[in-house]
Amino acid sequence: MSRCYNFAPGPSTLPLPVLEQARDELLDFRGTGCSVMELSHRSREFTEVHNETQALLRELLGIPAEYDLLLMQGGGHMQFSMVPLNLLGKGNVASYIVNGTWSRKAAAEAARFCTVHVAAENPGVAAPSQDELRIDPRSSYVYYCDNETVHGVEFGYVPETGGIPLVADMSSNILSRPFDIRRFGAVWFGAQKNFGIAGLAIAAVRHDLIGNAPDSCPVMLNWKSYSDKNSMLNTPPTFAIYIANLVCHWIKREGGVKELERRASVRSKLLYDAIDGSDGFYFGRVEKESRSRMNVTFWLKEDALSGLFIEEAAKEGLRNIKGHRSIGGMRASVYNAMPVEGARELARFMNDFARRHG
Amino acid sequence: MSRCYNFAPGPSTLPLPVLEQARDELLDFRGTGCSVMELSHRSREFTEVHNETQALLRELLGIPAEYDLLLMQGGGHMQFSMVPLNLLGKGNVASYIVNGTWSRKAAAEAARFCTVHVAAENPGVAAPSQDELRIDPRSSYVYYCDNETVHGVEFGYVPETGGIPLVADMSSNILSRPFDIRRFGAVWFGAQKNFGIAGLAIAAVRHDLIGNAPDSCPVMLNWKSYSDKNSMLNTPPTFAIYIANLVCHWIKREGGVKELERRASVRSKLLYDAIDGSDGFYFGRVEKESRSRMNVTFWLKEDALSGLFIEEAAKEGLRNIKGHRSIGGMRASVYNAMPVEGARELARFMNDFARRHG
Repeated sequence: MSRCYNFAPGPSTLPLPVLEQARDELLDFRGTGCSVMELSHRSREFTEVHNETQALLRELLGIPAEYDLLLMQGGGHMQFSMVPLNLLGKGNVASYIVNGTWSRKAAAEAARFCTVHVAAENPGVAAPSQDELRIDPRSSYVYYCDNETVHGVEFGYVPETGGIPLVADMSSNILSRPFDIRRFGAVWFGAQKNFGIAGLAIAAVRHDLIGNAPDSCPVMLNWKSYSDKNSMLNTPPTFAIYIANLVCHWIKREGGVKELERRASVRSKLLYDAIDGSDGFYFGRVEKESRSRMNVTFWLKEDALSGLFIEEAAKEGLRNIKGHRSIGGMRASVYNAMPVEGARELARFMNDFARRHG
Repeated sequence: MSRCYNFAPGPSTLPLPVLEQARDELLDFRGTGCSVMELSHRSREFTEVHNETQALLRELLGIPAEYDLLLMQGGGHMQFSMVPLNLLGKGNVASYIVNGTWSRKAAAEAARFCTVHVAAENPGVAAPSQDELRIDPRSSYVYYCDNETVHGVEFGYVPETGGIPLVADMSSNILSRPFDIRRFGAVWFGAQKNFGIAGLAIAAVRHDLIGNAPDSCPVMLNWKSYSDKNSMLNTPPTFAIYIANLVCHWIKREGGVKELERRASVRSKLLYDAIDGSDGFYFGRVEKESRSRMNVTFWLKEDALSGLFIEEAAKEGLRNIKGHRSIGGMRASVYNAMPVEGARELARFMNDFARRHG
């Protein structure tokens, strides 16, 4: 079949030019006579890819020298452990804003290592406001997830913590809007939603927060192992880093994070307008000011039509819009690599489907 | 340039038909309209790849149902931590055969978690014999590395441990000869040498040895997290698993592990014959019965010629034969995917170079 619009929540769609370049040089990486997958991670050629990827990410995200940029494996679940292991220091308390599935999982994992204080809780309807946050002043850090993919809830502000290091999981909205890293102790993201492919997780960590893990911390869970060795203590996930490199170049060519932010607004507005203009045929459950620009969730008033909706959409090349199994309904994930045209096509289909069945 | 013979120690050469298939279906995975990199790990199409890869590996390695087959991230260094975290149980001692760089690193990491008893030590010249092993009977497990890549030392036998679970790192010789998994509590390997690409590590673990990690074990370092969820607690490294799948099919087509064993013998014999027949122009440091079939290490009597040797070899498309920085000399890694013709070409070049400069 021809290329579809893939609304999967992650792994998810990649920029077509990235895929084409990867295909075209898959058997001979720039005259080496090898695939990039076959290059030693210590070769000159791969070292260039590795270092350039870090430099490009620093440039795109505005990460200054006092923050380390770490390339890791293990996904979000590994960071759920690494955050407390690296940041508790001599403390024993951390505050978590529990606002959805991912922050809840992060808090549950942290509870292995410390007392978790829940600073705010929310059933997936809105991001808690600054006024609602109750941060335990003994906390070694404050943690939140900037965009919750299951319900589609996104923060519209950076929490104020009164000097306690703030940690954000930005897996699902990284590079979709500028942010000031200086507001954070650490920002981390898995690559496979808004950036690259599965098997790569990236953190920007303020340098003075590195080096405080206990001796019992497994070597690959200690941020210092990555900081000390330029993320090359052992073999990094070279192909995933290569794809990240191509995506960075693509973002620069397209106009940088500001342009991706503009597209994210256009895409999500197209879909929320289709919901809001459907006279109740579709409805969402997230308060408007917390609606995610990345994961647009909605339900059909007549739930019996949901199966047909998914089936007909798929026939038109609009794939993977079924909602998370825990809450049902629909979810269109419209990450950085989703063309605006994909969202426009989905909105058109939604209007058409509502007209035919409303 | 045309395709070279890549003797890198890992990441390393892959079968050409695997690369060609990956290239040909990189933009549309079997009619899905997506790249395999863009497929949700929970999609029907990727789940099939995931499950088939496990089934094929079980078949190729002869792994019965009482062993779990786990697909993980983090490389060997993560397994260095996972082995003690998962196998110590209520014990506090483990025996390590320290026979080279990799087993030494594994032992150093285990020392975070328990008392490490060194069962035998060896400066990279030979695998210790069974008679030389001094296993601490209090050990929760006995650990060794079946093939040490830096010096090129390979075990020719499976250590007898008197009922204590045996753990082997087979990262660099997996699938190059049959072995009886029932002799082992656990066998693990990183994919990027003899099997696939970086970012995937695999373990076969006897099921009754799983579930004994302490509550403080980070979720992604607990083998049970993988065992309980078919290695899908979180997003696995999907593209690396896809490449593993293609390699499994390639091995089956080529004739299975027995055929790979035959080729490994032919390849390494070609190179050791070139060394032994050079009248001292080349020499090795590993005792003959412990010579690795995977990593052939040698030195030039006239060390001043080493740079020229590497340079001329590269010009003939024989790449990445420089030895490990810790010991110098040459190392030709001839893993499963290296064609016999590659070893033949290198042997021819070695003979020719010796004739011209001897």
